[in-house]
Amino acid sequence: MLTLGAVLYPDFELLDLYGPLEMFGTLGEDMKIVTIAEAVGPVRSTQGPQTVAEYDIANAPQLDLILLPGGIGTVPALDSAPLLDFLRARAPAAKVNMSVCSGSAIFARAGLLDGRRATSNKMFFSLATSQSDQVEWVEQARWVVDGAMVTSSGVSAGTDMALAVIADLFGPERAEQIATYTEYQWHRDADSDPFSVYLNKGELPV
Amino acid sequence: MLTLGAVLYPDFELLDLYGPLEMFGTLGEDMKIVTIAEAVGPVRSTQGPQTVAEYDIANAPQLDLILLPGGIGTVPALDSAPLLDFLRARAPAAKVNMSVCSGSAIFARAGLLDGRRATSNKMFFSLATSQSDQVEWVEQARWVVDGAMVTSSGVSAGTDMALAVIADLFGPERAEQIATYTEYQWHRDADSDPFSVYLNKGELPV
Repeated sequence: MLTLGAVLYPDFELLDLYGPLEMFGTLGEDMKIVTIAEAVGPVRSTQGPQTVAEYDIANAPQLDLILLPGGIGTVPALDSAPLLDFLRARAPAAKVNMSVCSGSAIFARAGLLDGRRATSNKMFFSLATSQSDQVEWVEQARWVVDGAMVTSSGVSAGTDMALAVIADLFGPERAEQIATYTEYQWHRDADSDPFSVYLNKGELPV
Repeated sequence: MLTLGAVLYPDFELLDLYGPLEMFGTLGEDMKIVTIAEAVGPVRSTQGPQTVAEYDIANAPQLDLILLPGGIGTVPALDSAPLLDFLRARAPAAKVNMSVCSGSAIFARAGLLDGRRATSNKMFFSLATSQSDQVEWVEQARWVVDGAMVTSSGVSAGTDMALAVIADLFGPERAEQIATYTEYQWHRDADSDPFSVYLNKGELPV
């Protein structure tokens, strides 16, 4: 059994977290999901609903996979020394480190993407690129794999990335089974990115 | 501002809940999301992570929209008198009552779909159809709208349904903005259902 640590911070984006967790969680006995934050207890999402963090950073178990969502909370999270230190300490030991949407800005701030290719959500792309000029930022990609660092584009691209990671770890047949079981129309091409036309055109629709 | 009540029960399916909540939550000031369960506090999902229920059934506020997820917890939930009574009491007053996946089995058990058209997830379709023969069950549909009852197919179809409900309540342009903002490839056709070929072929992939 592998352990996936979902790293939460206040005002994370719901679907960034839960699209991938749906797919990894459907692996059953092969994948244990744990939730981690600076403190144990409820963590509020951008959209309101609260998820329970089961572990604080100091007591998180060993992690085989790390999942870091984005959201409007990314901006204050960029200045969280405990979060950045945790990622710097844990990411090198993990098999796969995944970010969704603006989560890659946090990985970049932690220096974990230096010398690597990476992507982020398109509307607010500069939030990620401004964190490090040592990253080869890819403007047109649904997700980018560079070694153990796997970064995805905005919100729902994370679900496609999760299935690709499952295919890599457990075989393509397993990933297809899960996509079918969840009735999810998987976009399998990491380079197909219809949203890159919105590069840095971000404006909240509300 | 409208209020959406997300109704939780143990072992609900993560993406059934959070795909729609991502979309409704991006309406900002126009939509307040509240979480409701038999008791206040953490509710475990099928995949493990726990969501905080802010209200118990007895103290839930007035609801304009109700969202009922599916999941393996649907089977015991079908025998929960407090849950069924709550839905019977509240659904008639709501503008829109939505289910995802096997959530429609619970609506059907509560008698709320009698005389109406409805759908459910395809692999375990008979779980829904066996709850009432007074429902016109639609085998091929991503989602079905019949008055205030809106039922969707498996897991990720709920996200497509949510955007359709948003288009109905707030206009198609608003729904398109949200799909673009979240970088979600919205399947706009309620009748397009690539998963109906798996009708009652359900077998957990794990």
